[in-house]
Amino acid sequence: MKKFIDKDFLLSTESSKRLYHEAAAGEPIFDYHCHLNPQEIAENRHFDNLTDMWLAGDHYKWRAMRANGIDEEYITGKASSEEKFLAWAKTVPYLIGNPLYHWTHLELQRYFDFYEPLNEKSAGEVWKQANEKLKNDKSLSVHGIFERFNVYAVGTTDDPADNLEFHKKAADNAGIKTKVNPSYRPDRALAIEKDDFAEYTALLSKASGKNITTFNDFLSVLASRVEYFDKNGCRASDHDLPVMLFEAASDGSTGALWDKESAAIFDKRISGAAVSAREAESFKSYVLCFLAAEYKKYDWAMQLHIGAMRSINTKALKTLGPNTGYDVIADNKAGFKLARLLDTIESRGSLPKTILYSLNPKDFYVLAAIGGSFQGGIPGKIQLGSAWWFLDNKDGMEAQMKIYANSSVLPRFIGMLTDSRSFLSYPRHEYFRRILCRIIGEWAEAGEIPADFETLGRIVKDISFTNALHYFEKKRASA
Amino acid sequence: MKKFIDKDFLLSTESSKRLYHEAAAGEPIFDYHCHLNPQEIAENRHFDNLTDMWLAGDHYKWRAMRANGIDEEYITGKASSEEKFLAWAKTVPYLIGNPLYHWTHLELQRYFDFYEPLNEKSAGEVWKQANEKLKNDKSLSVHGIFERFNVYAVGTTDDPADNLEFHKKAADNAGIKTKVNPSYRPDRALAIEKDDFAEYTALLSKASGKNITTFNDFLSVLASRVEYFDKNGCRASDHDLPVMLFEAASDGSTGALWDKESAAIFDKRISGAAVSAREAESFKSYVLCFLAAEYKKYDWAMQLHIGAMRSINTKALKTLGPNTGYDVIADNKAGFKLARLLDTIESRGSLPKTILYSLNPKDFYVLAAIGGSFQGGIPGKIQLGSAWWFLDNKDGMEAQMKIYANSSVLPRFIGMLTDSRSFLSYPRHEYFRRILCRIIGEWAEAGEIPADFETLGRIVKDISFTNALHYFEKKRASA
Amino acid sequence: MKKFIDKDFLLSTESSKRLYHEAAAGEPIFDYHCHLNPQEIAENRHFDNLTDMWLAGDHYKWRAMRANGIDEEYITGKASSEEKFLAWAKTVPYLIGNPLYHWTHLELQRYFDFYEPLNEKSAGEVWKQANEKLKNDKSLSVHGIFERFNVYAVGTTDDPADNLEFHKKAADNAGIKTKVNPSYRPDRALAIEKDDFAEYTALLSKASGKNITTFNDFLSVLASRVEYFDKNGCRASDHDLPVMLFEAASDGSTGALWDKESAAIFDKRISGAAVSAREAESFKSYVLCFLAAEYKKYDWAMQLHIGAMRSINTKALKTLGPNTGYDVIADNKAGFKLARLLDTIESRGSLPKTILYSLNPKDFYVLAAIGGSFQGGIPGKIQLGSAWWFLDNKDGMEAQMKIYANSSVLPRFIGMLTDSRSFLSYPRHEYFRRILCRIIGEWAEAGEIPADFETLGRIVKDISFTNALHYFEKKRASA
Repeated sequence: MKKFIDKDFLLSTESSKRLYHEAAAGEPIFDYHCHLNPQEIAENRHFDNLTDMWLAGDHYKWRAMRANGIDEEYITGKASSEEKFLAWAKTVPYLIGNPLYHWTHLELQRYFDFYEPLNEKSAGEVWKQANEKLKNDKSLSVHGIFERFNVYAVGTTDDPADNLEFHKKAADNAGIKTKVNPSYRPDRALAIEKDDFAEYTALLSKASGKNITTFNDFLSVLASRVEYFDKNGCRASDHDLPVMLFEAASDGSTGALWDKESAAIFDKRISGAAVSAREAESFKSYVLCFLAAEYKKYDWAMQLHIGAMRSINTKALKTLGPNTGYDVIADNKAGFKLARLLDTIESRGSLPKTILYSLNPKDFYVLAAIGGSFQGGIPGKIQLGSAWWFLDNKDGMEAQMKIYANSSVLPRFIGMLTDSRSFLSYPRHEYFRRILCRIIGEWAEAGEIPADFETLGRIVKDISFTNALHYFEKKRASA
Repeated sequence: MKKFIDKDFLLSTESSKRLYHEAAAGEPIFDYHCHLNPQEIAENRHFDNLTDMWLAGDHYKWRAMRANGIDEEYITGKASSEEKFLAWAKTVPYLIGNPLYHWTHLELQRYFDFYEPLNEKSAGEVWKQANEKLKNDKSLSVHGIFERFNVYAVGTTDDPADNLEFHKKAADNAGIKTKVNPSYRPDRALAIEKDDFAEYTALLSKASGKNITTFNDFLSVLASRVEYFDKNGCRASDHDLPVMLFEAASDGSTGALWDKESAAIFDKRISGAAVSAREAESFKSYVLCFLAAEYKKYDWAMQLHIGAMRSINTKALKTLGPNTGYDVIADNKAGFKLARLLDTIESRGSLPKTILYSLNPKDFYVLAAIGGSFQGGIPGKIQLGSAWWFLDNKDGMEAQMKIYANSSVLPRFIGMLTDSRSFLSYPRHEYFRRILCRIIGEWAEAGEIPADFETLGRIVKDISFTNALHYFEKKRASA
Repeated sequence: MKKFIDKDFLLSTESSKRLYHEAAAGEPIFDYHCHLNPQEIAENRHFDNLTDMWLAGDHYKWRAMRANGIDEEYITGKASSEEKFLAWAKTVPYLIGNPLYHWTHLELQRYFDFYEPLNEKSAGEVWKQANEKLKNDKSLSVHGIFERFNVYAVGTTDDPADNLEFHKKAADNAGIKTKVNPSYRPDRALAIEKDDFAEYTALLSKASGKNITTFNDFLSVLASRVEYFDKNGCRASDHDLPVMLFEAASDGSTGALWDKESAAIFDKRISGAAVSAREAESFKSYVLCFLAAEYKKYDWAMQLHIGAMRSINTKALKTLGPNTGYDVIADNKAGFKLARLLDTIESRGSLPKTILYSLNPKDFYVLAAIGGSFQGGIPGKIQLGSAWWFLDNKDGMEAQMKIYANSSVLPRFIGMLTDSRSFLSYPRHEYFRRILCRIIGEWAEAGEIPADFETLGRIVKDISFTNALHYFEKKRASA
């Protein structure tokens, strides 16, 4: 029997161990998609206690606690930080088989040198020991954590109207060796059907210092924000597509008529009228295609996050707001529209590097196959994104990587990202690398691939870090 | 090489063996969803021969025999019981990798002490030996079986118009220690589009002794039947939803307009007119939301069985009728409507404990994620139902439990049910528990969870029995 | 650690090894569905070099090279054969975990006695050694390959308008022991919406020597081509159904009104008018049902390939044409329409043996369950087709076989086909058989099935060859 989460955790074969310890473990981290707060980075936040650092804003943990019957008082309510921590500690033993179980213990080990299982009994000791460390140990401040985990770069998630003040501050701060790259996430710019679209357009206008009265103004401001983000280190955009969308002009074309109709939809909406579902989808598709070309100009990667249905519990939305644990996996069709979208962009010669994430595992194969029809130019141009959110677990990662391998060239995979709001999430990279080495090591042991550790070690390093480094690197040659 | 289905069947590690033998094996059975005949229970049926007991009504076996090319004569036709048994025995060797193969041999071992593979050669001996036992061994009567397998409770499946005569008889029979709980399955009450809706409404009227002329009458009778079922030990309802449904009022609302429109649809139908597909769906959704609140009142669990497409072979339906092996797995979308349904009920504060079963494994993750957005109050309030029907096999159960664990708190899972028409199906609980212990034991051996047998043993006992006991137990505090 | 792709490749247990080496390995190959060129068979093509034989037309490899960033020049462009081979060799090390990796090395071993990994370093030696063998070794001509791999029969894929000239030549050639059976693929006859439908009707007319002016003419010519194909050894038809289709008459019926409406749609189209999407689908459904009855007459198998979305990259379609690596996996619903189609045909008593292939693994269970409702008459009449195309890999085959086993009688499975355009693909049968023996051997070692090698060996031989032999054999008794 193996010891509980020891140094060979998840490493099922000798080859896996060797690959992990000799090749993967030492690589830096390129966390190209996360939801860290740039201000906390710039200002090198120190956390008061474990609850603030670990539970605040973590809706993964909140969902687990709710499923375990914990009263909301102890989750997002008025209970004290210590009470909340205790409620979490009580829940942890019920999480066997859940990635939270592994993340929790890896985090306790790597940040707080605590190696026992967390439960009601050990909770008091953890609370005391961790909070003491938080108070005294500078390596648990944001910058300390970056250094401890060898974080080469992070990609935050930012609105085009954001002035990137804190990214600039971080860049100017010699104490931060980690690159803090913004990512351009124009969801509000596409959400023409929402009540605040006009208000948001005004925000964009203000941010760019340009008046927006026509659709052309709107597009040109979006383009200028792309340029602004690029100047401030942005290397990727990000789109949340609850349902994969593609709707062209009313006659199905994607040329001049589409230009005209999209402008008319914009005008109509800005004048205060409502738009139909078809109009909204057509407008979004148009803007997405327009932006893709801008992303390409700056050699950015375009991230499409497909299939998250948001805030399905109205009662909870009213009391707690969005991003509190009420988003789920949708099961819409994705294939046909995704193919149409990529084809339209490719037909114009403006397809950027693209990462396709699916929140529904039924679509991994579909996305992999479609992405594979738009490859070319650089290795791994179109990526099947790392197992996302609900799928970010051992089984989900294995499925994603095996489908990546079966459908494409796995050694070109850009690997893991945390997608996290928490500075305690870096061991998720370790978790991923262990699973990666487990898979490749098992193939080698079984004679399915040559046990050539030079080659395999390089592959493991590439997927752990180097591929992402090169993928997001700015190519000098680009327009 | 391990021996064929021996005491350590499916137990892949020492930890798995220990968990199964020391914790799981001795637990009672709470078979909370089945299709047993209450009359056969009340009257303690003795079976004449193995075919009557084992093959009659078992459309799983019938499908297997048809796929194996056996003539219908020997399946549901006029062949003798012995000939039918022989046809089954011939088919068994072709079922390697099929759960029927394992169930068959577990059943022969546990009921008839027969430990060899069933095939054409051994068929004669099995036929003779089993029938002799059936004749002479009282422990093979219904009550004997309940005792032998330590069946604490069964949940049969019953129409709201049923008078529950045999449940009462069973309750009054001191010889039956097993609780025989009815379950409320109002499929016919929702099926407003069917030809016999008016006829069924009359049945309900008769059962309740109340006239049904208005929609309010209809709802109040349904509510009174819930009360009646509750008095007779009912702890759960059950709905068959071939396609997940949710259609609100014509303007999308779920308040007064919906009340009014639903009443109008009812009136229209009762007056003999046909209703449109949209009207039927809206009506069903309305009644389901109404009933959910009633279930909540009595602290029942609401079971939603999603995705069975029924009687797809018209020729067979005409000759053999329903439930004869021609139902299949549908592949409709489930997510959006399920979210809307649960949200509507939750918004009214009337969401009961709910079990979401999917017949299509593509929806396990979707259902788990959606259910997880309506948790709260008690541990495991919303359950991802045990692998159902076509998925009730080793691979399906592993997938369901791993997705349960990845998405929620597996130790709160209420575990297995037989869903069976046969009194020979209790070893399916053993089968399930072996797979459960296999999974958890493997995690412990791999160091993915602590090898703390006290905790793991309790978890295994909980999932095997105690969780279901508590989940279906009537809470005194409820309204 | 096992050696790289040695004699026990993929054989994880002693039972697996024994089953493979003693039962599976020696069986002939019945490659019942492929895309080999009948002319190359009839004329016993000799290949000039490895690129011609191995890379030409192989869009699987092309996709892999594109994903690896290889310039199109070296894939389908003007680069020399040797340069193209080198580009491929450079890509191979990036294909770990991809079936191409295994196929490549099995092919190098079995055809060219080359046992090292292919990569940039070994490429020169392989190029030289393989081309020398191609020049000097007669066993690398088409007929030599057939003999070397003990190919009992191949089923090519042919248009109904084809005169089958080369099938006749092959049949007349005493040097070819392999049966070269055409397969009837009437995709163009169903594609009424396409621009060339009238043109194609003329082709059919010419091939059959009968004028086609009415819909009845059209159907009777299609029927006469079935008869012609049957006379020339055809044992199966094949339909490409990107989206599963079934649309009956405008009132939902499938009788006289449908006859009438389908004829009207045909007339309309032949007269040059366009047809609506609904009309096209109704027409296709009608013709498919008509043809099914014809297939049944001759005891053919009907193959339905469901879920390939074609040529999604318009730019590539324009420059490279179809079948160049731009087809993908669709994610449409399949269940309801498939059930309606099979039910309609079965209701008429004209359902032939049917093989249901899905390109989307989410549909394996759905197809297996639906197919299982139309069994009867012969063992395994309705088959869940072997893992197809994107799924033709170790994981896909394991999934398909386990779902086959869980849903039906695996020992009746007709097993593997190459679906290939290349004469180098026969080791895919070996690959499949290794995986089959791996699965069954593992079950035996685990005690899940009896370790009865006589029975298991027979099952393995049946799935490897004998089942296909009997399935496609012409029954004397048929009409």
